[in-house]
Amino acid sequence: MTPATTLGELADRFGLVLAGDPGAAIRGVATLRDAGPDQIAFLANPAYRAQLPTTRAGAVVLRETDREAAPGAVLVSRNPYADFARIAALFEPPVPRHAGVHPSAVVDPDAVVEDGASVGPHASIGPRTRIARGAIVGPGCVVGEDCVVGEGSELVARVTLVRRVRVGRRVRIHPGAVLGADGFGIAMDQGAWVKVPQLGGVVIGDDCEIGANTTIDRGALGDTVLEEDVRLDNQIQIGHNVVIGAHTAMAGCAAVAGSTRIGRWCLIGGGAGIVGHIEICDRVTINAMSMVSHAIREPGTYASGTALQENDLWRRNAARLRRLDEFVRRVNARLNPREEP
Amino acid sequence: MTPATTLGELADRFGLVLAGDPGAAIRGVATLRDAGPDQIAFLANPAYRAQLPTTRAGAVVLRETDREAAPGAVLVSRNPYADFARIAALFEPPVPRHAGVHPSAVVDPDAVVEDGASVGPHASIGPRTRIARGAIVGPGCVVGEDCVVGEGSELVARVTLVRRVRVGRRVRIHPGAVLGADGFGIAMDQGAWVKVPQLGGVVIGDDCEIGANTTIDRGALGDTVLEEDVRLDNQIQIGHNVVIGAHTAMAGCAAVAGSTRIGRWCLIGGGAGIVGHIEICDRVTINAMSMVSHAIREPGTYASGTALQENDLWRRNAARLRRLDEFVRRVNARLNPREEP
Amino acid sequence: MTPATTLGELADRFGLVLAGDPGAAIRGVATLRDAGPDQIAFLANPAYRAQLPTTRAGAVVLRETDREAAPGAVLVSRNPYADFARIAALFEPPVPRHAGVHPSAVVDPDAVVEDGASVGPHASIGPRTRIARGAIVGPGCVVGEDCVVGEGSELVARVTLVRRVRVGRRVRIHPGAVLGADGFGIAMDQGAWVKVPQLGGVVIGDDCEIGANTTIDRGALGDTVLEEDVRLDNQIQIGHNVVIGAHTAMAGCAAVAGSTRIGRWCLIGGGAGIVGHIEICDRVTINAMSMVSHAIREPGTYASGTALQENDLWRRNAARLRRLDEFVRRVNARLNPREEP
Repeated sequence: MTPATTLGELADRFGLVLAGDPGAAIRGVATLRDAGPDQIAFLANPAYRAQLPTTRAGAVVLRETDREAAPGAVLVSRNPYADFARIAALFEPPVPRHAGVHPSAVVDPDAVVEDGASVGPHASIGPRTRIARGAIVGPGCVVGEDCVVGEGSELVARVTLVRRVRVGRRVRIHPGAVLGADGFGIAMDQGAWVKVPQLGGVVIGDDCEIGANTTIDRGALGDTVLEEDVRLDNQIQIGHNVVIGAHTAMAGCAAVAGSTRIGRWCLIGGGAGIVGHIEICDRVTINAMSMVSHAIREPGTYASGTALQENDLWRRNAARLRRLDEFVRRVNARLNPREEP
Repeated sequence: MTPATTLGELADRFGLVLAGDPGAAIRGVATLRDAGPDQIAFLANPAYRAQLPTTRAGAVVLRETDREAAPGAVLVSRNPYADFARIAALFEPPVPRHAGVHPSAVVDPDAVVEDGASVGPHASIGPRTRIARGAIVGPGCVVGEDCVVGEGSELVARVTLVRRVRVGRRVRIHPGAVLGADGFGIAMDQGAWVKVPQLGGVVIGDDCEIGANTTIDRGALGDTVLEEDVRLDNQIQIGHNVVIGAHTAMAGCAAVAGSTRIGRWCLIGGGAGIVGHIEICDRVTINAMSMVSHAIREPGTYASGTALQENDLWRRNAARLRRLDEFVRRVNARLNPREEP
Repeated sequence: MTPATTLGELADRFGLVLAGDPGAAIRGVATLRDAGPDQIAFLANPAYRAQLPTTRAGAVVLRETDREAAPGAVLVSRNPYADFARIAALFEPPVPRHAGVHPSAVVDPDAVVEDGASVGPHASIGPRTRIARGAIVGPGCVVGEDCVVGEGSELVARVTLVRRVRVGRRVRIHPGAVLGADGFGIAMDQGAWVKVPQLGGVVIGDDCEIGANTTIDRGALGDTVLEEDVRLDNQIQIGHNVVIGAHTAMAGCAAVAGSTRIGRWCLIGGGAGIVGHIEICDRVTINAMSMVSHAIREPGTYASGTALQENDLWRRNAARLRRLDEFVRRVNARLNPREEP
């Protein structure tokens, strides 16, 4: 049975301006292209504006400036994507959870599972670890010693917290993520590697989200830290003793090497790499697949790499690039014999 | 006890032209360099042609054009690599499987495990999920609610299907893969992130293969789709609502951002990245570690990036590249004062 | 209860020259900035030298050349990072382990778990597999058939050894790692893919370390090999039949395609990619995010890619780079009409 509401209720609840029938029944959300008369759609990305005039949606959440192009009811919003997200959450199907500790789970006698927490099938919980009220440890998770999973947080399934990982409140960690594994500390001595013990932990602030198969190593000395509301996509790698400022978001496959500090409200593109031991200030955007090899002290957008080219052209240009310095020197010598070397 | 066959049986079974003793016993496969008289080798990649004259293999699967250089028996094929693959499959050791549901597995009462399916140790199966005939859910897998694992498909071990994941027939999914995790949908509102519910699912076509620790997020609205016979290597990231056409293959660590559509028979190189919300037509090859930032409308091969260089040379060239636009403008001004700016 | 020692004991044990009170009690290790009077700090990376004069550490492990700048006791070392690592190991808290086989683990009757080995909760061990003395198979690990986990090795948690994986002695493998999955072998035939069976295994030498969510595929024919003391960070991808020489280290998210051979004492930077079927000689350093597309026959440091730039500058330079070959030809034609084309 799908829950139902009305356009009027949605407008009231989220403070939106409705143009349309407040009694119209709404049973779900969909895209502009696919929505039917009992569904809400939205328009935020201008790339999809062409789909607005022909939408069959019961109402469209959009900006005042797009209102005229809508064929039917609208919910006017100053932030259509965020308001659509809030509306969509009403229609998210509930996820079944076993209350309490599943009989197949293994909980250390020195662990604490608070009332209202859920520990799923085949999970294991180590000594001196606390699963707080309303927290969910999903099937197949391994939580080691000296960890905390804060109130209302969820380890969806097959998450590992190795040791000394303190997770704040309302954090969501997706399957396959590994937090608190040994940082990569090795010292070369007489031709062989000596392992550097990793004695710190990991601290995850409230309201963070951590994607599937993402890895966050624990600190060598001191902790690896995500401040509150940091959002990490899948397959991200965070080295030991990294600090990521509040409200920063990173797209899939980005990586940050050890001891680097990233500011607040940064946006790190997919596949971007950031070297170790540097600082990046607040409000920096790094484009996808760029490499950051030095500190960034000014807010703004940064990029590296080259544009995609048809392969034959790429080969010719890459060959020229290999000799660019030589070429520039030669040209400069001809054009400006006394100037730049 | 290794199974044995003869050259004649192999030639008959796979429609190959045999030059050699049809009664010769064959007990396995190996490389040109390592094969002995009771093993089959193959030659497909010209890089290994130099090993042909000295091979001790019982027979070599090769193209007509390589036949003369072979020292012994040959099986002539128009596609040696594919025919070798079919021969090798005869010698693959069988993998032990527990029939039925292992006593340590946890199966929701509202799930269906069909006759002849196998659910391994410490697996868990959620409500309204169906494991079809002959399907294998290996040890430590977590299959959430509203999923299907189709006939003859195999989740090798420790695979997670989070929810609303429909896997077709004869699909193989390797350990650590996560399908159906939340897509990365977040909306910034007044300085903090609002989570965008991910209400869609994942659809995997027949005969797909999905590598270890690969992640495929479920759609925000509508599904993320792999058509039939898509082949994904390890550690690939597929964002929500991506559609990948039939017979496309992607090498390790490639990534595709949300809502992008990739055509059929494409080859995506290792570590390549494809931005979101674009279309790539059929029969496109992307070189390893290239970044695709715009739609591709013509079949062909594409690349970005720069060639590897000795580090000192790289530094000089990279420094020149940072000032390339300025340099070109300066040179153009000198050489063509009235032309290109 | 933290273990305690004295400066004199540390100097004796590790052969360091002490300047300070040999009886001073030491209860742990910390950074130069955070260490207190009962803690050891170290100085190896010159970037942290500015923190030396104000440290409150009980003693600092450092090079002779830094000795004068220290405000208090010092332990003089020719390799401060390695000696600090050895000291720090004294203070690593012990990790609790269940002795023997946990009742929830599933061990095949044809597997051998030697005395003193530990098999954790929800682990499963396949037929013809041996877990050697003192080895640890942590919670949620899946070890398939025909594997060996050598003496004193540890699979921390949720590690998968799919099949035919032989792990040496004193190897540490972090959570989510997958060793021995099918290599990515596919052959195109008449428009569809044919799977190439992966009949080899994986061999991991003594004293290797393998990071979280790293994947190492088993060989197609023959084995994928890591020689002794290879150190792999998180989320690394190693294709089938790769061979990595002893003492080589690779940082996070690096990837090596199939059948490539890497020498000894190489350093592969984070996110670097190495194509298949090539050889890299001993003592090669590859910078982070570089792509290696050809064999390397000379020791040294190599790089590809471009430097990070402010986005508007990047766009202008990238546009020029797309036309670099054309530009060079045009300039050469003007400056050297008879020379280089």
